[in-house]
Amino acid sequence: MKLDGVSFVGFGSGSPNGAAFRAFDPTLNATVEPVFISATLVDVDRAAQLAAAAAPVWAALSGAERNRFLRLVADKLVQHTAVLAARATQETAIPLARCESEIGRTAGPLRLYGEAAERGDWLDARIETAIPDRKPLPKPDHRSLMRPLGPVVVFGASNFPFAYSVAGGDTASAFAAGCPVIVKAHPAHPGTSELVGVLILQAVKECGLPEGSFSLLFDASIEIGQALLKHPLVKAVGFTGSLHGGRALADAAAARPEPIPVYAEMGSVNPVFILPGALAERAAVIGDGLHAAAMLGVGQFCTNPGLIVLQRSVPAEDFVRALTGKLTATAEGTMLTPGIRKNFAAGTAARTQQPGVKVIAQGSMAAACGAAPVWFETDAVNFQRNHTLSEEIFGPSSLVVWCKDAVEMRDVARHLEGSLTATLQAGKDETAQQGGLVAILAAKAGRLVFNGFPTGVDVSHAMVHGGPYPSTSDGGRSTSVGTRALNRWGRLVCYQNFSEELLPPELQNANPCGLRRLVNGQWTIAAM
Amino acid sequence: MKLDGVSFVGFGSGSPNGAAFRAFDPTLNATVEPVFISATLVDVDRAAQLAAAAAPVWAALSGAERNRFLRLVADKLVQHTAVLAARATQETAIPLARCESEIGRTAGPLRLYGEAAERGDWLDARIETAIPDRKPLPKPDHRSLMRPLGPVVVFGASNFPFAYSVAGGDTASAFAAGCPVIVKAHPAHPGTSELVGVLILQAVKECGLPEGSFSLLFDASIEIGQALLKHPLVKAVGFTGSLHGGRALADAAAARPEPIPVYAEMGSVNPVFILPGALAERAAVIGDGLHAAAMLGVGQFCTNPGLIVLQRSVPAEDFVRALTGKLTATAEGTMLTPGIRKNFAAGTAARTQQPGVKVIAQGSMAAACGAAPVWFETDAVNFQRNHTLSEEIFGPSSLVVWCKDAVEMRDVARHLEGSLTATLQAGKDETAQQGGLVAILAAKAGRLVFNGFPTGVDVSHAMVHGGPYPSTSDGGRSTSVGTRALNRWGRLVCYQNFSEELLPPELQNANPCGLRRLVNGQWTIAAM
Repeated sequence: MKLDGVSFVGFGSGSPNGAAFRAFDPTLNATVEPVFISATLVDVDRAAQLAAAAAPVWAALSGAERNRFLRLVADKLVQHTAVLAARATQETAIPLARCESEIGRTAGPLRLYGEAAERGDWLDARIETAIPDRKPLPKPDHRSLMRPLGPVVVFGASNFPFAYSVAGGDTASAFAAGCPVIVKAHPAHPGTSELVGVLILQAVKECGLPEGSFSLLFDASIEIGQALLKHPLVKAVGFTGSLHGGRALADAAAARPEPIPVYAEMGSVNPVFILPGALAERAAVIGDGLHAAAMLGVGQFCTNPGLIVLQRSVPAEDFVRALTGKLTATAEGTMLTPGIRKNFAAGTAARTQQPGVKVIAQGSMAAACGAAPVWFETDAVNFQRNHTLSEEIFGPSSLVVWCKDAVEMRDVARHLEGSLTATLQAGKDETAQQGGLVAILAAKAGRLVFNGFPTGVDVSHAMVHGGPYPSTSDGGRSTSVGTRALNRWGRLVCYQNFSEELLPPELQNANPCGLRRLVNGQWTIAAM
Repeated sequence: MKLDGVSFVGFGSGSPNGAAFRAFDPTLNATVEPVFISATLVDVDRAAQLAAAAAPVWAALSGAERNRFLRLVADKLVQHTAVLAARATQETAIPLARCESEIGRTAGPLRLYGEAAERGDWLDARIETAIPDRKPLPKPDHRSLMRPLGPVVVFGASNFPFAYSVAGGDTASAFAAGCPVIVKAHPAHPGTSELVGVLILQAVKECGLPEGSFSLLFDASIEIGQALLKHPLVKAVGFTGSLHGGRALADAAAARPEPIPVYAEMGSVNPVFILPGALAERAAVIGDGLHAAAMLGVGQFCTNPGLIVLQRSVPAEDFVRALTGKLTATAEGTMLTPGIRKNFAAGTAARTQQPGVKVIAQGSMAAACGAAPVWFETDAVNFQRNHTLSEEIFGPSSLVVWCKDAVEMRDVARHLEGSLTATLQAGKDETAQQGGLVAILAAKAGRLVFNGFPTGVDVSHAMVHGGPYPSTSDGGRSTSVGTRALNRWGRLVCYQNFSEELLPPELQNANPCGLRRLVNGQWTIAAM
C-alpha cells in the first residue's frame, strides 16, 4: 500500500498546496518518508459540505446497514494488520506486538458498536399511544427516539494510533450512531492514518454509502482542527489528548454562534489508594502490578497511575523503597514524539523544584526520545496546598502522597480533581469499612477499581471511560468506551400523532427493526 | 400563609440586608406587598456549602425514598392550590383557573419523576461479570450506572410560576436523580415562589432529609444567579427563559475553571407548515386551532406557533384573511411583566420596519401590560435573507411566510434554526409524499407535530421538550419534560471488581431495588 500523503476529502483528494510535513521515527530520531500535505480551509469546507450532504442518508440507514459497514471496516483492519502495525511502530515507537494487538482492540469496538447499532437499545425508543377521550384534553400519540446529530469531527490521538485514531472508538461510535465522520489525523502518525483511512473509504464504497461519509484531513498545525470545529455544518467533536488541547477545543465550541458538544478525554492522574491491610497481605503483588501499570506504554496511557496515596508506616516505606528500586532499574522507553518527550522532561524538572517534593526514583535517559521513570513523593498537607501537584505529567512519572492516617487519606480523596479512574487496594479485614472512602472516590472518577490497577479498559456494555473535569470536558456524563459511547452522538426527537407511513421504522407499530421499546410504560420487543 | 420575603438558606433565613424589591400586579399595574429581600453572596456560598454537604446523603437515598419525598411535595402543592393560585394570579396576571390547573400539572411530574426514580430505568444499570480465564487477559467484573451530579441550581421561569419554577420540572427531575437543589426564584413571582418553597422545606423536614437539600434565593437583579452559577460546588444548572439569558448562563458556565452543564430552554419560533391539501380539507379547523394555540397565555408559551409557512394560493390567502380577522378581533391580554410587555412592543415595532415585511393583524392595546396580537407576513426569499425574521418575538406575534411552491417550502425548512417543535399540517392525499420534508424538520426540532398544534406538552416517558440551538443550549441532546429529564442530572460511574458489600445496592447481585439491568448483554430484573 503506497502512501500518497494527501488528505481524503470525500472520494476526492485534498489540495496539493498545503504546508508539507513528514512523520518522525522516535526510535531512529529521524523523519520518515513520504511528505504529507496539510489540508487547506477549502478542504475543510468541502469535507463539511460533503458530510452534511451525506448526513440525511446516514440518518436513514438502518442499524443493520451500519453494522454491516462497521464489520467490514473491522475485517479490513484485521486483514491488513501486518502493514498497518509496521508503519505505526515506525511512526510511534510503540512495539510491533502492541500495535498488532491494538489493531485487534480496534476491530473489537467496531464490531461491538455495529451490533449495538443493529440492536438499537441506544435509541431509547419510546411510544405512548393516544387516549382520545382523556379529560380535560385528549392525549396524543407520542413516539420518540435518539437521532444522529450530523457530521462529527474526530481528532486522532497520539498514544493510540488505532484504538483512538482514524477508525478508533470515537469514529466507530459516531458511525454506529449514524453520523458521517471527518477525521483530523494526528500529525505524529499520518502514514498509519492514511492506511486506515484507505480501508474506511474502501468500505464506504463497497457498502454503496455516499461521498462525504468519511473524510481524513492532515495538518501539522492546529489551524485545520480549529476550522473544522468552527464550521457551521459540524455538529459534534470527539477528542483524546491533553487538557490544554481539549479545553481549547471545548472553549472554542462553546463560543460558536451555535455551540456544539466536544467530547474531550483529557488529563487524568488516576489516583491509587493503598490501605495498610493491602500491603500487609500482598505488598509484592501490588508493587509488581503498580510497576507494570505505570510503565505500560512508557507511562503514556490515559489510565496511567499518576498518584499513589499511602499511610506512612514502616511497611509502606519498605513498599515504596522496593518499588522505587524496581523503577530505577527499569530501562528507558521511547516516547511517542519529541514534543511529548520535551514536555515530560520539562514537567518532571518543574516538579523537582516544588517545595516539599522529593525525587524518589530517577532512571537514566539517553536516547533522544527516551524516557525513564521519574517518581516523586510529598506529604498530604503539601499536596493539598500546591495545585501543580494535582496536574498530570504525561509519561512515566508518578507522585507518592504520604498521609498520617486514614482521616488524612480521605482529605486527600476529597481534594482530588476528576480522573478517569480511582483505585482502592484494601485488605480483607478493612474492606467493609471503606464505604465512606468509596463514596468520596465515586464523586471523583468514572471508574473505580478495587484491588486491581487502572490500566486495561474493557470494551463492553458496562465500561465507563470518562470522568469529572478535567479528565473529560463533559464532566463524566458520557463515556468514550463501551456501547454507551453511541449516546454522545444523538439528540432526542419526538413524533406526535404521526401516521405509520411517515414514522421512522424504529417507531412503527410493526417494530420492523425488532427494537426493545418502552410502550405505554412497559419495555417490550413486541409489535403493536 | 404569611410571606416573610427572605430567602431560605437551608433551614435558615437569608440575610436581611440585601436589596429590597416587591412583586408587581400586571393587571392592576401596581406593586404588591410584602417587601422581598435579595440574597447576598454570603447566602449563595452558604446555600452551596449546605447543598454540597447534603449531596452524599441524596446520592445514597434509594429511589423509593426520593419518590416518597416527591409525592409529599406534590400532595402539599395540591392541598394548597387555593392560596398558591391566588398569589400567582396576582403576580403574573395568569387567570386563576389556569394557575389552578398548572398546579395540577406541576404535581403530575413530581409524581411521575418520583416513580421514575423508584423504578430506576434512568440509572441504566449494567453488569458484566468476570471471566477469569479469558485470554490474553482475564476479564474483570464491571458494574456501572448513573450517579447524581451533585448540587443543581434551578432558575425559575416567568411564564410558568409553578410548572417551570420552584417545584417545577427541573427541580423535580433533579431531586428524582438524587441532587440537592438551589432555586433562584424568578423576581416576577416571589410570593408564589416563597409559598411553594415553604412546602418543599416542610417535605424535606417531614422526610428527615438533611439541611441543604433545598434552598430558595431571591434577587431582583442578575448578581445572585451569576454567583450561583460560578460557585465551585454547583455542578449543573436548569433554566427556562430568553435566549439572551440562557446563552449568558451557558457561556459563563463554559468559562468556569471547571465547566458545568447548563440545560437552558430558550427561544423557539415553532414553525407550522400548512400544505394545500390540509387547507382544502379543513381550513376552518386549522384556523381555529392555530388561533387558539397562538393566543394561549397571551402568546407567552415556549411552544407558541411563531412562524406559519404556506404556499401562496387563493385558498391560502383566504385562510390567512380569516385568521387575521379573528386575531384583530381578539381582546388584548395582560402580559406577565411590564418588561415583557415592553420587549414585545419593541420587538413588534422593530419587525414592522423590516424591508419586505407587512403587518397583517394588529389588535388594539390599551392597558399598561396589555398585549394584542401583532402578526406579520413576508415571502420566503425575504425570510431567508433577513436573519432577524428568524428570531422569536415573545408574545402574541407570528410571522406568515409565503412560499411559491413545495420546493420553496423545503428551502424555508432547511433554512430554519432549531425549535422546540415543528408542525406539519397535510391533507390525506399528500401525506405519503412528505417524507423528505419530515426528514428536514426532524433535524430542526425536538418534537414534530402532525396535523395538530405545538402547544400542549404531555409529561410522559416519550415526551421530548428540547431541540437544536437556539431552542436549547445543549442542542437537543436532552429534554426538560418527561422521564428522560432525569438523565440530565447524572454522570456515569463504573465499579470494577467490587465485592457485594461495597457496591451500591443498585448493582448488587441480589438486585434489592428490583431494577431492570443489562447483565452480560441481556436485560433482566432477576437477581444473580
